Amino acid sequence: MDKKYWSGRIQNLVPYTPGEQPRDRVFIKLNTNENPYPPSPRVLEAIRQATDSRLRLYPDPEATDLRRAIGERYGLAPEQVFCGNGSDEVLGLCFYAFFTPGRKVIFPDITYSFYPVYTELFHLDYEEIPLNEDFTLPVERFLGENGGVVVCNPNAPTGRTLPLEDIRRILEANRDAVVLVDEAYADFGARSAIPLLPEFPNLVVVRTMSKSHSLAGMRLGYALGSPDLTAAIGCVKNSFNSYPIDRLALAAGEAAIQDVPYFEETRRKVMDARAWTTQALRAQGFRVHDSDANFVFAAHPALSGETLQQGLRERGILVRRFDRPRIREYLRITIGTQQEMEALAASCEDILKG
Amino acid sequence: MDKKYWSGRIQNLVPYTPGEQPRDRVFIKLNTNENPYPPSPRVLEAIRQATDSRLRLYPDPEATDLRRAIGERYGLAPEQVFCGNGSDEVLGLCFYAFFTPGRKVIFPDITYSFYPVYTELFHLDYEEIPLNEDFTLPVERFLGENGGVVVCNPNAPTGRTLPLEDIRRILEANRDAVVLVDEAYADFGARSAIPLLPEFPNLVVVRTMSKSHSLAGMRLGYALGSPDLTAAIGCVKNSFNSYPIDRLALAAGEAAIQDVPYFEETRRKVMDARAWTTQALRAQGFRVHDSDANFVFAAHPALSGETLQQGLRERGILVRRFDRPRIREYLRITIGTQQEMEALAASCEDILKG
Repeated sequence: MDKKYWSGRIQNLVPYTPGEQPRDRVFIKLNTNENPYPPSPRVLEAIRQATDSRLRLYPDPEATDLRRAIGERYGLAPEQVFCGNGSDEVLGLCFYAFFTPGRKVIFPDITYSFYPVYTELFHLDYEEIPLNEDFTLPVERFLGENGGVVVCNPNAPTGRTLPLEDIRRILEANRDAVVLVDEAYADFGARSAIPLLPEFPNLVVVRTMSKSHSLAGMRLGYALGSPDLTAAIGCVKNSFNSYPIDRLALAAGEAAIQDVPYFEETRRKVMDARAWTTQALRAQGFRVHDSDANFVFAAHPALSGETLQQGLRERGILVRRFDRPRIREYLRITIGTQQEMEALAASCEDILKG
Repeated sequence: MDKKYWSGRIQNLVPYTPGEQPRDRVFIKLNTNENPYPPSPRVLEAIRQATDSRLRLYPDPEATDLRRAIGERYGLAPEQVFCGNGSDEVLGLCFYAFFTPGRKVIFPDITYSFYPVYTELFHLDYEEIPLNEDFTLPVERFLGENGGVVVCNPNAPTGRTLPLEDIRRILEANRDAVVLVDEAYADFGARSAIPLLPEFPNLVVVRTMSKSHSLAGMRLGYALGSPDLTAAIGCVKNSFNSYPIDRLALAAGEAAIQDVPYFEETRRKVMDARAWTTQALRAQGFRVHDSDANFVFAAHPALSGETLQQGLRERGILVRRFDRPRIREYLRITIGTQQEMEALAASCEDILKG
């Protein structure tokens, strides 16, 4: 690669690596935390209704209807909602909107691996705070002077949840900096920080429709916060791309957030399959942390993570592994249907038998 | 607005203002350069075919099929194609990927008003080179030392085209910097710089499907350049948002680029209506520049731009005006259907009669 024409800013940038999206072979895909159930039938119908000549027109750059629908769902005003192209884009915009070079942003050493990429991209100073041995968060390390805090809750890839009381302590100790709580997986069992919004003008909650609303393919994420904070995100967004959400995604998102019964039914099924999977893997000798997300984080004392991942792949099952200190022996296994999880357990048993 | 929690970087940022997207009243919309014709029937069919349970899965982050289809259309390899969420996002990524603070980026004073916003967002140094009195480009001013060149061709909002020979001169004089040619409107009559790609490793051509493919509502743009340059754009994109194009947009884009007969038919109709409109407005005393885009830039010696714009609005027609030095008396009028342009001409006549 000849980088002669690359900006000095990106000469050493190492991008985020998304999980594999196989194009040729059919796998049981437990590697990217997608929902095993299809989007709500109301979502598909809303897309069909919007698929017509109006696609020649720009979408609403302010996502007015979607913001209102999301606000209604959580009892917030539309001005407290910002919508973007997936929570990755929303997080990226937040990192630029709220953090300033020279003031250190802090987040755990084991967490969503996109956070350090944003900081490198935008040349922000940051510190990765080591999680405790059991992957819980050393809360006291997040109470000192800093330029911003990012907490994924429940955390990825561990699935562990930080109690709301600890989020509150972090918010109280950081009144001069923004605390970003990434709740990509919160719908699967964690207590949301949304009820803390009225108390804390420094809180931003980021969420996605990719997981609990089965819409990874449509790219919808949002941030919740005070109007002063959502305006900052909007200021960056409108200086970069006025219309990141297309007309069909806007229609899909509105229908998805409104179909609460379908949401409840599918997330319940995922949570039930997670309980089953946790038990089944523990019975095989796996160390499996309690998870509040749509994945479990599991390691086996008898086999390396690499061997397990490769063995599953040979048996037609994809799981994700991060080749990084402290967690390279772990598999992050997305919760699929009950049937898929039974196939996973059977394959694990098969591999363990040698 | 309390900016206490805003990054120091964006305290003074003034975002781009997109054209009005009316939500309540029906206007003849000649203000945002949308295509008056619907997307190809093949596009709508491709979207319908993709609207199913697969929306639960992430899209292909590399847009492999779409890049191949675009490459085939222009005789380029997929590695020479980068796809993004509209050409605005692609341009934003390019500004970050290719330009470095301290090295001055140059573009005309009258051009797409998003360019200075990107430079402000990313704290790049830049200089706006004044266009000549007749809105042609003073080519010699673009041949000196600089950190990058951005040329919109045909230019917005003037519609004037820079001859390919002049693009070549700029490329030859800037072998150490990237020359970004924004061809958002080139399909309506300008000669593209794409044939220059094999000769110039410093050339990036940016295009959109919003205008000539009637897909403003689906957010599709792309950049063409050497694999070293598209990799730089990809490096920034993958450090910000892995999946900016959703599954339905990918399907739509592929169908759109492949339906060449529909593309030829609709752009011909737009070009014919442009010729008619230019004549009709000139016959009413308007100064109208020859345009190679899907809009004309017109001013009338007897009435201010503001009066004209307001008069048209009262008659149910939206056009765009930029309240900036040198061009505030001009209207940028998008070319709609022949019927819409006849309504425009009739309304102008009505306003001029007083």
